[in-house]
Amino acid sequence: MSSLFVHDTDRARRIGLPEAILCASKTVDQLAAVLNALLAEGSRALLTRLTPEQHAALSDDLRRRLHYDPISRTAFLGPVAPPSGPPRVALVTGGTGDQRVAEEAARTLAFHGEAVERHYDVGVAGLWRVLRRREALARFPVVIVCAGMEGALFSVLAGLVPGLVVAVPVSAGYGIAEGGRAALSSALASCAPGVAVVNIDNGYGAACVALRALRIATFR
Amino acid sequence: MSSLFVHDTDRARRIGLPEAILCASKTVDQLAAVLNALLAEGSRALLTRLTPEQHAALSDDLRRRLHYDPISRTAFLGPVAPPSGPPRVALVTGGTGDQRVAEEAARTLAFHGEAVERHYDVGVAGLWRVLRRREALARFPVVIVCAGMEGALFSVLAGLVPGLVVAVPVSAGYGIAEGGRAALSSALASCAPGVAVVNIDNGYGAACVALRALRIATFR
Amino acid sequence: MSSLFVHDTDRARRIGLPEAILCASKTVDQLAAVLNALLAEGSRALLTRLTPEQHAALSDDLRRRLHYDPISRTAFLGPVAPPSGPPRVALVTGGTGDQRVAEEAARTLAFHGEAVERHYDVGVAGLWRVLRRREALARFPVVIVCAGMEGALFSVLAGLVPGLVVAVPVSAGYGIAEGGRAALSSALASCAPGVAVVNIDNGYGAACVALRALRIATFR
Amino acid sequence: MSSLFVHDTDRARRIGLPEAILCASKTVDQLAAVLNALLAEGSRALLTRLTPEQHAALSDDLRRRLHYDPISRTAFLGPVAPPSGPPRVALVTGGTGDQRVAEEAARTLAFHGEAVERHYDVGVAGLWRVLRRREALARFPVVIVCAGMEGALFSVLAGLVPGLVVAVPVSAGYGIAEGGRAALSSALASCAPGVAVVNIDNGYGAACVALRALRIATFR
Amino acid sequence: MSSLFVHDTDRARRIGLPEAILCASKTVDQLAAVLNALLAEGSRALLTRLTPEQHAALSDDLRRRLHYDPISRTAFLGPVAPPSGPPRVALVTGGTGDQRVAEEAARTLAFHGEAVERHYDVGVAGLWRVLRRREALARFPVVIVCAGMEGALFSVLAGLVPGLVVAVPVSAGYGIAEGGRAALSSALASCAPGVAVVNIDNGYGAACVALRALRIATFR
Amino acid sequence: MSSLFVHDTDRARRIGLPEAILCASKTVDQLAAVLNALLAEGSRALLTRLTPEQHAALSDDLRRRLHYDPISRTAFLGPVAPPSGPPRVALVTGGTGDQRVAEEAARTLAFHGEAVERHYDVGVAGLWRVLRRREALARFPVVIVCAGMEGALFSVLAGLVPGLVVAVPVSAGYGIAEGGRAALSSALASCAPGVAVVNIDNGYGAACVALRALRIATFR
Amino acid sequence: MSSLFVHDTDRARRIGLPEAILCASKTVDQLAAVLNALLAEGSRALLTRLTPEQHAALSDDLRRRLHYDPISRTAFLGPVAPPSGPPRVALVTGGTGDQRVAEEAARTLAFHGEAVERHYDVGVAGLWRVLRRREALARFPVVIVCAGMEGALFSVLAGLVPGLVVAVPVSAGYGIAEGGRAALSSALASCAPGVAVVNIDNGYGAACVALRALRIATFR
Amino acid sequence: MSSLFVHDTDRARRIGLPEAILCASKTVDQLAAVLNALLAEGSRALLTRLTPEQHAALSDDLRRRLHYDPISRTAFLGPVAPPSGPPRVALVTGGTGDQRVAEEAARTLAFHGEAVERHYDVGVAGLWRVLRRREALARFPVVIVCAGMEGALFSVLAGLVPGLVVAVPVSAGYGIAEGGRAALSSALASCAPGVAVVNIDNGYGAACVALRALRIATFR
Repeated sequence: MSSLFVHDTDRARRIGLPEAILCASKTVDQLAAVLNALLAEGSRALLTRLTPEQHAALSDDLRRRLHYDPISRTAFLGPVAPPSGPPRVALVTGGTGDQRVAEEAARTLAFHGEAVERHYDVGVAGLWRVLRRREALARFPVVIVCAGMEGALFSVLAGLVPGLVVAVPVSAGYGIAEGGRAALSSALASCAPGVAVVNIDNGYGAACVALRALRIATFR
Repeated sequence: MSSLFVHDTDRARRIGLPEAILCASKTVDQLAAVLNALLAEGSRALLTRLTPEQHAALSDDLRRRLHYDPISRTAFLGPVAPPSGPPRVALVTGGTGDQRVAEEAARTLAFHGEAVERHYDVGVAGLWRVLRRREALARFPVVIVCAGMEGALFSVLAGLVPGLVVAVPVSAGYGIAEGGRAALSSALASCAPGVAVVNIDNGYGAACVALRALRIATFR
Repeated sequence: MSSLFVHDTDRARRIGLPEAILCASKTVDQLAAVLNALLAEGSRALLTRLTPEQHAALSDDLRRRLHYDPISRTAFLGPVAPPSGPPRVALVTGGTGDQRVAEEAARTLAFHGEAVERHYDVGVAGLWRVLRRREALARFPVVIVCAGMEGALFSVLAGLVPGLVVAVPVSAGYGIAEGGRAALSSALASCAPGVAVVNIDNGYGAACVALRALRIATFR
Repeated sequence: MSSLFVHDTDRARRIGLPEAILCASKTVDQLAAVLNALLAEGSRALLTRLTPEQHAALSDDLRRRLHYDPISRTAFLGPVAPPSGPPRVALVTGGTGDQRVAEEAARTLAFHGEAVERHYDVGVAGLWRVLRRREALARFPVVIVCAGMEGALFSVLAGLVPGLVVAVPVSAGYGIAEGGRAALSSALASCAPGVAVVNIDNGYGAACVALRALRIATFR
Repeated sequence: MSSLFVHDTDRARRIGLPEAILCASKTVDQLAAVLNALLAEGSRALLTRLTPEQHAALSDDLRRRLHYDPISRTAFLGPVAPPSGPPRVALVTGGTGDQRVAEEAARTLAFHGEAVERHYDVGVAGLWRVLRRREALARFPVVIVCAGMEGALFSVLAGLVPGLVVAVPVSAGYGIAEGGRAALSSALASCAPGVAVVNIDNGYGAACVALRALRIATFR
Repeated sequence: MSSLFVHDTDRARRIGLPEAILCASKTVDQLAAVLNALLAEGSRALLTRLTPEQHAALSDDLRRRLHYDPISRTAFLGPVAPPSGPPRVALVTGGTGDQRVAEEAARTLAFHGEAVERHYDVGVAGLWRVLRRREALARFPVVIVCAGMEGALFSVLAGLVPGLVVAVPVSAGYGIAEGGRAALSSALASCAPGVAVVNIDNGYGAACVALRALRIATFR
Repeated sequence: MSSLFVHDTDRARRIGLPEAILCASKTVDQLAAVLNALLAEGSRALLTRLTPEQHAALSDDLRRRLHYDPISRTAFLGPVAPPSGPPRVALVTGGTGDQRVAEEAARTLAFHGEAVERHYDVGVAGLWRVLRRREALARFPVVIVCAGMEGALFSVLAGLVPGLVVAVPVSAGYGIAEGGRAALSSALASCAPGVAVVNIDNGYGAACVALRALRIATFR
Repeated sequence: MSSLFVHDTDRARRIGLPEAILCASKTVDQLAAVLNALLAEGSRALLTRLTPEQHAALSDDLRRRLHYDPISRTAFLGPVAPPSGPPRVALVTGGTGDQRVAEEAARTLAFHGEAVERHYDVGVAGLWRVLRRREALARFPVVIVCAGMEGALFSVLAGLVPGLVVAVPVSAGYGIAEGGRAALSSALASCAPGVAVVNIDNGYGAACVALRALRIATFR
């Protein structure tokens, strides 16, 4: 089995982000093989989209080595150090259904030593919820925004704060908004300048954009 | 030719809105035939989507009988009375490209005796432009909002004002927003309650929604 | 948990519609937290898209405080007064599958003190079913129409009655009509003037459009 | 050039419909080659989607041999006999923009010796226009309906008449109805039983469906 | 409940086809109410898309009154006479997965007294399977073709037989063919003249097209 | 300018196909710069999608060095040797509109020394046109099929011949077939095994597939 | 039942590939009937998309005659000879989720006597994994590439190796990549020349393209 | 006119980016009004999507005050200082057709005082063109990548360099790639972690993402 998994061991050196393990389309056997290979290498790793069912089906031994969070469906293999400083990333959500995606971003950032500050449930229909946080949010170099339905929150925030705004469309909604497509097109078509967009539900990817950006001061 | 055009002469009695003439797919010969039939009946009419080229190709006599506006591409056949009272409809646009659609609504309302108040170019990226008008807009029973790109303006306004909000997605934008689809899905998927949506670029339809609603007090 | 839920307590004052609780993407824990926060505030609330499974999973105490209707999947938290007058909204459906959506509108209106008159199962294939109700429907200031499949009912009704016609496309149908997209495009592209459209299956939104419109007489 | 054109000379014997020449994607040289090949064979033919520009670019000699109609963009090569009996096909359109498509059907039927009766401009927004023709239309074995926008006319008619209803969606409309997609999905999703649908703008195809059906009595 | 169901009792007189009961989106309670209403009227009826689960959930009494076929998911309420003559409709399928749809057509025809002749599993990849049946199929006034995947069978058959070809795209296939969309567009875009298309999986609709067409000889 | 063009000079050595110059989105200045760079290198090259307008706008000197074919919109820069043997590729088209795409394939093959045999205008509606060529086509190791509309020809041919069938969907058609999408989905969803598909209108790509496949005997 | 299954017994002679049995939309009864028919004919066969549940539901006797592989969901009926020579096809995958599709290709090739060499889990994000295999892969006449998500691997490989590259988009991914559509469009739009594309998840089809191509040397 | 244009004069203070003027949907009169308003305010501004035709139609006086670049279709109103330091942004393109979009990014950055380093025409089909620049590109904090067709370049680069990768899908391509949709979905579905995506052809937006990110070191 192990020849079917080729770990990109060099990735952290190359781009500063170790390979994460996307569990979504893996069988339990494949997952176990990957985890054992990582353990044999002594690598730590972030696992994403690990369902409670997949997690429960792993051996006791493997489960003991994972730090699993069922809301974000992520797990840490190996030790994770506490954040080295105050939060540099704000996490904003429009509604309750966006939290699982925001938490995926939070866990990815935690795995890389970054703390976050949460500003949850501040949808545009009650604009004061955003406006009263404007000054707080304007102090963050990176603001990750998770929103489903029509995704108006992306434009509102990008017009209010100077930091890098990373938009994560969320697959919450029905009818025309089903699957997150309406929120995705809102993020891409935003009238506010400089919104960085990632795939629907991709909290992990948004965190990686943040990590690449936060590292900018270290260049040259 | 005239047997090819069947005027719905009863429509005003039935639903309170006389039939308008959509000129978009008509040849100049067809247009002339329709206008002559209306003149023979003594009907007044609103013409929509009448291009400058179509207008210019009509006979001098017909052109003299039309009150044409090239921005909204509408024309009035027959007399139009001045509005009977102060504006009951506010017209809001997000950007300059939305004005032609908003003006189609304004002309349709004018044809039916309703004045409008314009609040143009108040896109969400500079939110203060909307917020400073909030009190003014909250006094209107109907607010028609025309916006292209991501259409965040629909949700922002519907969360701020108590009147009937009619959303007109506009085919301004490119890439994912081409043809107005992104704005349309934002309008339909809005997290703010009670947004009434019409087809892309349908300023005429938005005005008709307003006219039906403004008439509500006359029932029973 | 409670910091994850920010109630828009000001919404009723601002737009005349208190915030409703969309239960679709909430876990049972999140739902309980929201309900407890509302109870602590002494707020009454409308819950939408509350599945029987979600409802059953709530504590006995919370369930006792809810007035749940499994067809519309709505619940009332707190007292609901009887309607203050005769029905001002007619509810029309094309087929049996549209009733759950119409009932969501009815319950939303009831929560706000408005009665409805139901005209159900009057699909266009048997046109007499609509025509014999024409006079009755023409007396209503607002007519909410719920229809799936091809949604021809929207245009037929909007051509017959003078009230505000609110179209709710319903996700009933298969093949090209799957998910309600055919009905949605029919509603938006209607040849009848002044159809106000809401998202697929959005009975709640249609009721909110009606409530905004019915309030028009109170302006100025 | 002629080897690039392979006339299906056997088609009339096989399926009762000789091959028609679709001119849409042909260069003028290709058209001339096809026409000369048909003349050499002594075949008569129907040409469809022949633009005025293509027609004008043909040689005088070829143009003289064609009976061209610019509205339907069809031409007859060779003699066409007058219809052998009273009309068996009714042609119904919703609006003025649908006439070019209906006329393509009329010309195709004329080429095959079938007369039509036209019922034009009877859109659903003014339902009486359809209803007063109901008895007339109910006498036809085949009713071809051409409609753009939301295509509600298909369902209304199919619920009223017993003949074979052939629906031709028309690419008239804008926004969500652009290109005829809304009308196409209405035709396919109709709640009225037994609507036979052809491609958008395919008046020729609708006529061929009618011709196949009218021939049914000759089987066995 | 019964006021929620309005039977179109006049439909058979009007268009020659009694109203069928589409069970897909009905609850068991709604189904029972409809069936009891029909029994009270003394109407016979065809039920379509009645799942085995729905059927099993009906009362014993109602189940006894239905003649149910699990493959086509149809049921007859009331007596069905044997066909009055030899088959006038040929039923052709491309693959095994198309049979359930073809059987829905067969049952609908049987309910109306028409017999069918089945030519199943004759996909285009083995063209001889179609070609050897060409003469047999050419004798039928109506040929109903059910095919999924790429739907090439529609064009092949419509080029070979003179009868009315009714194409039923089937939701068999995966990837680009998922849900029957590829087969649907093939049917509509066919290069063979005069293919009558119905919605995906709509065997019932195809049978109704056939019934309308077969009745043509009775006009005038 | 030249630093804006980086010729992949190594491509022929690497994959056996020199880089072709896609002219579609290049300005005349960019084209001239590319051609001069190639001339300076002494490279020969194939140019694709070179419109007559672009070609005419080049300098006389550059035009003299190109062997241009306006039907396929291709040009050769530098000498092209005659084919080294009999045709190994058959080119099949469904209709006249497919020829421009087929000729792009023919020219690409000619540039690489491969002759073709043309079998044009053999659409499925007249199946005998294909069937009488079956034996001829079965002798070819590669059969390139160009078809628009519903693309049934792909499946018919792939079920009849043993060679590699390369399907090129063509953007001929209207309505549901507009832009070649119907033909593309037919090619991909074909019920015949082993159809190799390329992008819509990509005659060049089909020829490259053929060239890669014809070279197979030279491996090992 | 058996008349409902028409085996294309002549296919192997005609195109060199015997008919495979696609089990996806077959009931267990239909499957058993097909298998018994094949056994009665003495035919060997390849079964694809046979789920573990379908397999388990077959009779013991039938199950004993099948060589089933649950990963690829394929089964062999009848004997399969070992490959006659060294591998001529390389199988490349981007991630773990692509293996089931690659294995369907491997099994199809094995059924026809061709061995494969696997190069799994070499996604583009860690490009060295592909580059270090470049020389090995460049020696293969055919390279089948299975990739989901954005499918960048198709272009990278087709730019590196001279063999026939067959791209199989895989339905792994979420959001915009759901169902494999993003990978499919990448494969078709590839900037590398000569990528042969098959339907999403169609490992069987890719193997058939390979088999047709590998046979090229035997022509003439 | 001027009341129709509401300049967001506060934007630079708020988010660090002054409002840019999107000229795409403005008439020449509207453009002149906007420019005159800006001149009256003494504001400098960046104009985007200003076509040569629009530019030529402005008055000589206004044209003299603009620094126009026809390739990027941008103009500067007012003085632009030279860049204050060495380039911090690398601009990468896949093909010649992507340059106009990359130049829009370059001009936007220049307007804000940032220099760029261009790495043009390094498409994935000739991978060495990217690989030989890997070390150079790895030194940049921000890498903007513009690519059309299948957009494989986004993933390749994001797997090789540690900086922030901003992907701009370009509307170059045909068939399935038309309008840039294939490149857009590749960017969003990338298997490489942390790709920040903007709308199709939105070079301006990509530059704004870069400007927000480059400013990160100035927070706190």
